[in-house]
Amino acid sequence: MATSISSTSLSPWAALSSSSSMYLDPSMSYGLALGCVILQALPYIRCIGESWPMTKERAYFEALALREHGRFSPEHVPEVYHFDRTMSLIGMRYLEPPHIILRKGLIAGTEYPLLTEHISEYMARTLYFTSLLYRSTTEHKRAVAEFCGNVELCRLTEQVVFSDPYKVSQYNRCTSPYLDRDAEAVREDNVLKLEVAELKSKFCERSQALIHGDLHTGSVMVTHESTQVIDPEFAFYGPMGFDIGAFLGNLILAFFAQDGHANQVNDRKTYKEWILRTIEETWNLFHKKLIALWDEHKDGSGEAYLPAIYNNPELQRLVQKKFMEDLFHDTLGFGAAKMIRRIVGVAHVEDFESITDASKRAECERRALEMAKLLLKERRKFQAITEVVLAIRKLQ
Amino acid sequence: MATSISSTSLSPWAALSSSSSMYLDPSMSYGLALGCVILQALPYIRCIGESWPMTKERAYFEALALREHGRFSPEHVPEVYHFDRTMSLIGMRYLEPPHIILRKGLIAGTEYPLLTEHISEYMARTLYFTSLLYRSTTEHKRAVAEFCGNVELCRLTEQVVFSDPYKVSQYNRCTSPYLDRDAEAVREDNVLKLEVAELKSKFCERSQALIHGDLHTGSVMVTHESTQVIDPEFAFYGPMGFDIGAFLGNLILAFFAQDGHANQVNDRKTYKEWILRTIEETWNLFHKKLIALWDEHKDGSGEAYLPAIYNNPELQRLVQKKFMEDLFHDTLGFGAAKMIRRIVGVAHVEDFESITDASKRAECERRALEMAKLLLKERRKFQAITEVVLAIRKLQ
Repeated sequence: MATSISSTSLSPWAALSSSSSMYLDPSMSYGLALGCVILQALPYIRCIGESWPMTKERAYFEALALREHGRFSPEHVPEVYHFDRTMSLIGMRYLEPPHIILRKGLIAGTEYPLLTEHISEYMARTLYFTSLLYRSTTEHKRAVAEFCGNVELCRLTEQVVFSDPYKVSQYNRCTSPYLDRDAEAVREDNVLKLEVAELKSKFCERSQALIHGDLHTGSVMVTHESTQVIDPEFAFYGPMGFDIGAFLGNLILAFFAQDGHANQVNDRKTYKEWILRTIEETWNLFHKKLIALWDEHKDGSGEAYLPAIYNNPELQRLVQKKFMEDLFHDTLGFGAAKMIRRIVGVAHVEDFESITDASKRAECERRALEMAKLLLKERRKFQAITEVVLAIRKLQ
Repeated sequence: MATSISSTSLSPWAALSSSSSMYLDPSMSYGLALGCVILQALPYIRCIGESWPMTKERAYFEALALREHGRFSPEHVPEVYHFDRTMSLIGMRYLEPPHIILRKGLIAGTEYPLLTEHISEYMARTLYFTSLLYRSTTEHKRAVAEFCGNVELCRLTEQVVFSDPYKVSQYNRCTSPYLDRDAEAVREDNVLKLEVAELKSKFCERSQALIHGDLHTGSVMVTHESTQVIDPEFAFYGPMGFDIGAFLGNLILAFFAQDGHANQVNDRKTYKEWILRTIEETWNLFHKKLIALWDEHKDGSGEAYLPAIYNNPELQRLVQKKFMEDLFHDTLGFGAAKMIRRIVGVAHVEDFESITDASKRAECERRALEMAKLLLKERRKFQAITEVVLAIRKLQ
């Protein structure tokens, strides 16, 4: 069974020892005893090396986020047993076999029947309960202030997601020479750069909820029965769409990578349909669950929509519709930005990297890049997730 | 000469002694010596009384904001000489006669030839230099976190600007019985409530720049040569449009109040034209100055638009155009919300309150309210400030 160490992940942990069948937070000192795994942050970014230093304080924010998200979604967040800030050390639940990193499962072509149910539950609950839909301003501002301390990880995201792919950077790479011109086109696309500026501004300025901050398919461990979200070291108060988009965007990448994994034994056609259904269901279930939480707590202490004001069903419907439309467009935009950076930025995904034939890999990546550019530029024209799936089908 | 104590202001300071010709931060212990005024915060909201407690810590944020804004716009922010956090005590420059509160000048019908030049300079510089247009993420997040501490004042704004006017509240009042039905209509207007929710969300979540937080015409002291912005106790990292909107919205209120001040000696027609020119010039000069600062520092360390990405004149023009359009619409929305709350909320403005004939006052207020509702609902249709002025003319 594969470990969780992804050769491309930006995860800043370092593996100092390893085991063939357990989850390893990439780049981590760890020990294992009695169902517990011990993680320790190292002072640099793993995939770059010691030349790119990174604060060990991210372990503090990871532990904080695990605990906070764990309060709201205990079924899908591993429990933290111990945190030592001086040592940057987290002791948490060991995710026993057969848990594997979702990205590995997607590459292997494995279907997870409960994935959409679980991940939509995780996203709806963690995002809802840490937002002003549920919280008072006092709770919210206190938490926002605390997570402002995770600024180094926010800066890293700003750089690798919203900046580097759109300029010449020593860290960028792509499947060369096939995609050289495509990468250049991204850097020369004024409309794309205009749109990414708006998203970056939202990422930097909008403290909508406590987001995971790196919710790609490498941050989710799965079995057929279990879905566990790990590695929230990038957590801070940011736009909800950044998490939902990260997950959906990485599913779209997984979709476009399938043709590179197809062979005479398995043409992957059935599996591609499963991924498309997973994209559609994830959004639809998230939508349903968020609205259900909102309805359930609408008379609570959430500051955003006071019950004395939003006091009739017609108005409640109106505000929810507008909120979800805006969130959908944010989700598509952020998802697209996360896709682009995985094709022309520093950190690539194993979905594509594991396609050994470079020209075939480039073909898959190019289609994903075209899809991402379409989503980023035209996201406001999409009214439903079915339209997104239709656009993916057209481009494949 | 009038003092600055406005009977309707929400300013939380208390005047414990007074003088006929000096500026008093409303509800303030103060002393005066050698060009210095001493202010001390009291633990409640002045216009309500001891029944509405309010943290004395607001003096800390007021002093911090005065110093921060003073760094960027020293000509228009009085210097802070001393701050004592334990005593909640600020020692700052005494604004000598003939400085008066701008709102008093607007009621008196006085023209200030340098006002638009000065206030646009103040807004452009304080907002630009505290935003990610100029700052790095590290500086920005540190400052955002600190001002999250001013949460009680933020909550007060959320309540009195974005909530109370749209629901039944013990603190609301209006020129009754004339405006009873109008106030009720505000509370029953679904579209208005939908729009105000979006603005409230921006106010609560978007840390765009260090805003004054209460930049109405009662927070500005003027002479013919000088413009000084005072009372930033509501300061925090919020949306730029909240400040610009507060100022323009209060000018629009001043405009609609003029008919109530007209008499046989002065029909106020010329003065109304001056206010309209002031509205138009304030935005236009602000626009020009913000863009000039942006152009001047475009190769600096501002995180929002990195020079290596936004690297051609066409793209630079595009991003600036989009930024200013969004800011214009935010400005109109927040300005409208600030107008509405002054007519049907807790804190009214002297512009209207000083019209002794209640039926005449109600007529003036009703026109201002209609203008505000139009602006709030249709703000995205306005492309230029001239169109706003045209709409004001139509409604007068």
